[in-house]
Amino acid sequence: MIQTIQSAFVRLRHNRAFEFFVIAVIIISALEIGAKTYDLSDVAMDITKYLDVFITVFFLFEILVRFIGEKNKKDFFKSGWNIFDTLVVVISLAPINESEMALLARLVRIFRVLRMVSIIPELRILINSLLIALPRLGYVVLLMFIIFYIYAAVGSYLFNEINPVLWGNIAISMLTLFRVMTFEDWTDIQYETMEVYPMSWMYYMSFIFFTAFAFLNMVIGIVVGVMDEEHSKERNKGQPSLLDLQNQIAALSAQIGHLNKK
Amino acid sequence: MIQTIQSAFVRLRHNRAFEFFVIAVIIISALEIGAKTYDLSDVAMDITKYLDVFITVFFLFEILVRFIGEKNKKDFFKSGWNIFDTLVVVISLAPINESEMALLARLVRIFRVLRMVSIIPELRILINSLLIALPRLGYVVLLMFIIFYIYAAVGSYLFNEINPVLWGNIAISMLTLFRVMTFEDWTDIQYETMEVYPMSWMYYMSFIFFTAFAFLNMVIGIVVGVMDEEHSKERNKGQPSLLDLQNQIAALSAQIGHLNKK
Amino acid sequence: MIQTIQSAFVRLRHNRAFEFFVIAVIIISALEIGAKTYDLSDVAMDITKYLDVFITVFFLFEILVRFIGEKNKKDFFKSGWNIFDTLVVVISLAPINESEMALLARLVRIFRVLRMVSIIPELRILINSLLIALPRLGYVVLLMFIIFYIYAAVGSYLFNEINPVLWGNIAISMLTLFRVMTFEDWTDIQYETMEVYPMSWMYYMSFIFFTAFAFLNMVIGIVVGVMDEEHSKERNKGQPSLLDLQNQIAALSAQIGHLNKK
Amino acid sequence: MIQTIQSAFVRLRHNRAFEFFVIAVIIISALEIGAKTYDLSDVAMDITKYLDVFITVFFLFEILVRFIGEKNKKDFFKSGWNIFDTLVVVISLAPINESEMALLARLVRIFRVLRMVSIIPELRILINSLLIALPRLGYVVLLMFIIFYIYAAVGSYLFNEINPVLWGNIAISMLTLFRVMTFEDWTDIQYETMEVYPMSWMYYMSFIFFTAFAFLNMVIGIVVGVMDEEHSKERNKGQPSLLDLQNQIAALSAQIGHLNKK
Repeated sequence: MIQTIQSAFVRLRHNRAFEFFVIAVIIISALEIGAKTYDLSDVAMDITKYLDVFITVFFLFEILVRFIGEKNKKDFFKSGWNIFDTLVVVISLAPINESEMALLARLVRIFRVLRMVSIIPELRILINSLLIALPRLGYVVLLMFIIFYIYAAVGSYLFNEINPVLWGNIAISMLTLFRVMTFEDWTDIQYETMEVYPMSWMYYMSFIFFTAFAFLNMVIGIVVGVMDEEHSKERNKGQPSLLDLQNQIAALSAQIGHLNKK
Repeated sequence: MIQTIQSAFVRLRHNRAFEFFVIAVIIISALEIGAKTYDLSDVAMDITKYLDVFITVFFLFEILVRFIGEKNKKDFFKSGWNIFDTLVVVISLAPINESEMALLARLVRIFRVLRMVSIIPELRILINSLLIALPRLGYVVLLMFIIFYIYAAVGSYLFNEINPVLWGNIAISMLTLFRVMTFEDWTDIQYETMEVYPMSWMYYMSFIFFTAFAFLNMVIGIVVGVMDEEHSKERNKGQPSLLDLQNQIAALSAQIGHLNKK
Repeated sequence: MIQTIQSAFVRLRHNRAFEFFVIAVIIISALEIGAKTYDLSDVAMDITKYLDVFITVFFLFEILVRFIGEKNKKDFFKSGWNIFDTLVVVISLAPINESEMALLARLVRIFRVLRMVSIIPELRILINSLLIALPRLGYVVLLMFIIFYIYAAVGSYLFNEINPVLWGNIAISMLTLFRVMTFEDWTDIQYETMEVYPMSWMYYMSFIFFTAFAFLNMVIGIVVGVMDEEHSKERNKGQPSLLDLQNQIAALSAQIGHLNKK
Repeated sequence: MIQTIQSAFVRLRHNRAFEFFVIAVIIISALEIGAKTYDLSDVAMDITKYLDVFITVFFLFEILVRFIGEKNKKDFFKSGWNIFDTLVVVISLAPINESEMALLARLVRIFRVLRMVSIIPELRILINSLLIALPRLGYVVLLMFIIFYIYAAVGSYLFNEINPVLWGNIAISMLTLFRVMTFEDWTDIQYETMEVYPMSWMYYMSFIFFTAFAFLNMVIGIVVGVMDEEHSKERNKGQPSLLDLQNQIAALSAQIGHLNKK
């Protein structure tokens, strides 16, 4: 009998109507989350409560369908998206009423919206491309962190007494430098320190220059990477390389040479 | 006789002098719209009134010329630009004096300037390229919307009591996040929430990181798309692909092989 | 004797030491202009006066050398840079003392620094590339202007009574919109109008979207243009096109076919 | 015996465990620098003091190992990174207690974090790419400096009396213009000068246009440069150029021609 249920679940899982219903429930859960940020009437509040129970139960059901519908149970947990879905569903089973966990449970419910990403293949590809790009950018990010760290250390040594709110310790200084990098009221910070150290504009300018360069490097790295992928994709489509053509011409030349000798 | 009028209109429509006169009237209508934003003397006001009537009548005439000059009447409404022109002309026939519709009628008159786009082919191509690029960017925009939605939900749950003007509900929060994305006084918002949640800088930084990544993805997507178009254009110009060359060399090789056997 | 002077001037003009001396005088004139923005002692003021006379006379001499050293006098005025140099030199001959023209004469002296661009070939190329790129960008700039014009007209109709300083007439509105485009305190403007028209955020968001798209279009247009130039440069260097190769292979094939028939 | 020490040092230098220990000490020194920006207890202060002595001595030891482990002593100073490391180590030998040099010694200790860059090859490559890109960008930077200089001169002539804090002399004006370029509260500056010179918006707009163009030129220059490098790398990998292929086909054609004559 378990066999029958499993095969029924496999069929259900790949049913287009069921897929669209899942997407619809995700959208409804997203709208419910949005609606709860408004002041609602008592009736509407009650509706969201029942809706919440329904969505939680349905998501639990849907994840069970996918789990049971999977032939090899181990494969299910090999996909990061399945683990993510399971976590979101399990944690949102925690009751909201308990005061301590209430906020966390509410926040987890918000992450249900991310299930939209896990269910639409095109969005999953976009997120995967981010995760794939990350290690490639690893060293540029490390370099940027070192730049931030050094400037933050210099900043908190020199400017600590001028404005401890902005330069109190290395962590606060790094936040201040992030603000400078986004050009957000950075001249106010500069004018303040220039009153004590008139040459401190060099500190800001060199910082802006270095971070801009590192950022540019990052962007170019991504663009070149994307271009390379496009080129190799084209090659995989059956397009020969120039080297292949050269080899073919050399082979032809050998054939003609052979013909000459005869 | 109708036949004669129609053929006269067809000739008028493709007359260069008439085309330039249409552009001139559009420019005059644009200047008139600009002039009306200044405080005008009574005389000038009267002139704009008569000018307005003339422009409205002329545009109606011009659209009729184009409609009657079209052989197949159905084709006329197949072009989005013709529908746009007709709508602008028809709506601006509504009298300005009625207080209720007055503002709308005035705004529609402004859209007459857009007729500049519909009459200059190069601008029409630019706008079309925007409309063509939109679906390609669809999924990135959807991803960006999901990021905004989740962060806005989290923001209005956590920060609602700190500043309801900025985080009152999910719609206001999304507007606030758009402000953060443009780096507009975003640190003021951050410092405010950091007083209650000292770790909330992670909220802003991760948001900036995700949106910047999604935006970058979009730009790169457009650039790669444009490059691909250029490549395929070149191919259409008669340039063979490397695969074509390989096939030709293989054919040559077969010919020589045939020669060898003899 | 005039012949002798002319040939002497031609030689002087192409003398490397003279060229370096001209650059040195330009740098000195730039430094003098910078120095005059500081409060100077009376002695220093006297020095700048004499220096100014010397620079003016020397530049006049240098332009005469180049003019007389030119074989065909008409060719001299064919170069935009020569006309620019002559204008700067002639206008700076006007005495500074006259109160009316004083400011203008001072400003013209500043433009002498631009002679640095006209004398260093690499900088001249950079400026030329700007001038060449301008017409190509013409239609995008026109589209951008139309967007600005329409939004400015709508803005001054709707928001004129809210804040006449920002939306008083179409010219002021365009300036305000340029400010919005640079994200400079744009939310202050938005919040102000949202009090009267709560939906006016759509006005700002759509404006930012359209201008960002037009700007992106411009950047991509330039990049693609530069790439094309690079490609065609390579082709000019003697690199054959794929079409050339295909023709060669076809010729080979014909030769072998001829061989087969024998 | 010296021979024995040297060979022992050479072995030590290339020992992986030693390499990791050096990186660990650099990280510890970075953490120590960060920790010192917080208010520390007396015990913690004592620990940082002893740690500081240990790090200074260890770095001195490590540089000696590398110096003695180098076969040709002259080669050691040919590498800019070795000189940088030696300078950082030697200057941080200066005692912190002397009041005059204290701040400088502290700052030099921060530069020890940069040793992270000199020890990780991937980061060294990134920094080298910056240094290599600099001369290529030289002329664009020079053009940008000329633009800044001219606008700063005009600004301090015209606006000096309006706001000497922003336009007092050419150096301050250049700083103000850098602020305008980052769009930081630039409209405040503009509105101030527009009260006296209503047309001064042209000054700001043209400045923003020119610097944006120069910046764009720089970015495109880097992108095209990177692309070219990628192309030439591919060529070096053994990929023939189209010209090579053309020559090969011409050779083939000659062979067939030779065959025909027989």
